[in-house]
Amino acid sequence: MIFRQLFDAESSTFTYLIGCERTRAAAIVDPVREQIDRDLALVRELGLALTNTVETHVHADHVTAAGEIRRRTGARTLVSRADGPACADEGLAEGDVVSVGDVTLRTLATPGHTAGCLSFVVGQGGTSEDRVLTGDALLVRGCGRTDFQGGDSGKLWGSVTSKLFALGDAMLVFPAHDYRGLNMTTIGEERRWNPRLGGEATRETFVALMAALHLPPPKKIDEAVPANRACGDDGAADPRRPGPPVQG
Amino acid sequence: MIFRQLFDAESSTFTYLIGCERTRAAAIVDPVREQIDRDLALVRELGLALTNTVETHVHADHVTAAGEIRRRTGARTLVSRADGPACADEGLAEGDVVSVGDVTLRTLATPGHTAGCLSFVVGQGGTSEDRVLTGDALLVRGCGRTDFQGGDSGKLWGSVTSKLFALGDAMLVFPAHDYRGLNMTTIGEERRWNPRLGGEATRETFVALMAALHLPPPKKIDEAVPANRACGDDGAADPRRPGPPVQG
Repeated sequence: MIFRQLFDAESSTFTYLIGCERTRAAAIVDPVREQIDRDLALVRELGLALTNTVETHVHADHVTAAGEIRRRTGARTLVSRADGPACADEGLAEGDVVSVGDVTLRTLATPGHTAGCLSFVVGQGGTSEDRVLTGDALLVRGCGRTDFQGGDSGKLWGSVTSKLFALGDAMLVFPAHDYRGLNMTTIGEERRWNPRLGGEATRETFVALMAALHLPPPKKIDEAVPANRACGDDGAADPRRPGPPVQG
Repeated sequence: MIFRQLFDAESSTFTYLIGCERTRAAAIVDPVREQIDRDLALVRELGLALTNTVETHVHADHVTAAGEIRRRTGARTLVSRADGPACADEGLAEGDVVSVGDVTLRTLATPGHTAGCLSFVVGQGGTSEDRVLTGDALLVRGCGRTDFQGGDSGKLWGSVTSKLFALGDAMLVFPAHDYRGLNMTTIGEERRWNPRLGGEATRETFVALMAALHLPPPKKIDEAVPANRACGDDGAADPRRPGPPVQG
């Protein structure tokens, strides 16, 4: 398995490039529009062929590169069946498996940050290399906010503690964001040390804590959500990328 | 093997925490002074005991946490024998092996960015998990500058193409910095795609390219180099960390 974590510093977003050593098929999870040239150069240099883009959810803090990647490479856009945009090629729900050559992404529905949040267990069938991409459901010692886009703290509690924690303490966890320079964790660490969801936390303490956060809205929400509902193809001027050529 | 990559966004520095699953011994490579609380919290939460701090070189862009980590945990400070600071506990040179429980760090002398730059092959004896920490000698599609602290482009060419490239295409590479959100690479990729040191590059094209860079000095060089020559214990006020307690 080829597995690369990529970082967009402006939005603190992690993008994941997942490839199959044998077939050279690849998928990219949560690609960021401003990073498309970097990411497609890496795909080329690794000798991979992108077959899919995959979104963990409809993002409020950055715009997806999915639409433009589809135009440039033909990669199919995969999103949540629950609340994903209609422009996508395919909807995913609990139990769906995305094949990337010999590598699989097994879909877990983990709502709570948004109504349609997905996580993906990535691997080649139960080896110690298996890992879970948790989107904004579970972050390193944190979690996504629950105050918009169908967010629901009670549901997030269930998604994390019943579904993600059940993957076992050794499971490696790769989130969609980090703001402190920590790029991965494990289920065991979060079960023990996550200050919101682990240790002594209960559903009640978690729901109360999330209700008391009163966070300001994400800076880009008014731009990002509509743009992401159009797979990033909203026609809005991207100051860093004026008019890339349409191919394919 | 426990292996964690940590990032300091201000200096774009990667720090590596390396631990032994069995003995819980750990070493930290290139720790950044401003991140000491984050890093020691992670050490604690993973149930590890730091035995060593290790520097790939005397940094010009950030101040090491080595001295303060030594005070707080007793971890011995390991630096280059060629040009490391006298305040350190031990000097390392080509072939020296640092044991971290069952994990080893095998020292490679890779001068050129500075006169004393070291790389470390980290692993448990020739498994596919083996990886090399390259400091500033080899970065993702780049390399460290060669215009101060004993920098020498000809030597860096030799270090990378004769010593690091000899580790084999499959070897995973973890650098000390990245500025574009790419956090790792492989020897094979750099041998093929590094625009300075790979592909069609020759010693002559590399030396000419490096001589033509004319980079401004690192912002922190006048502070960082003297501070690092004192293992970070220069007594200079750290605005983010006023007066941590001295322990042990």
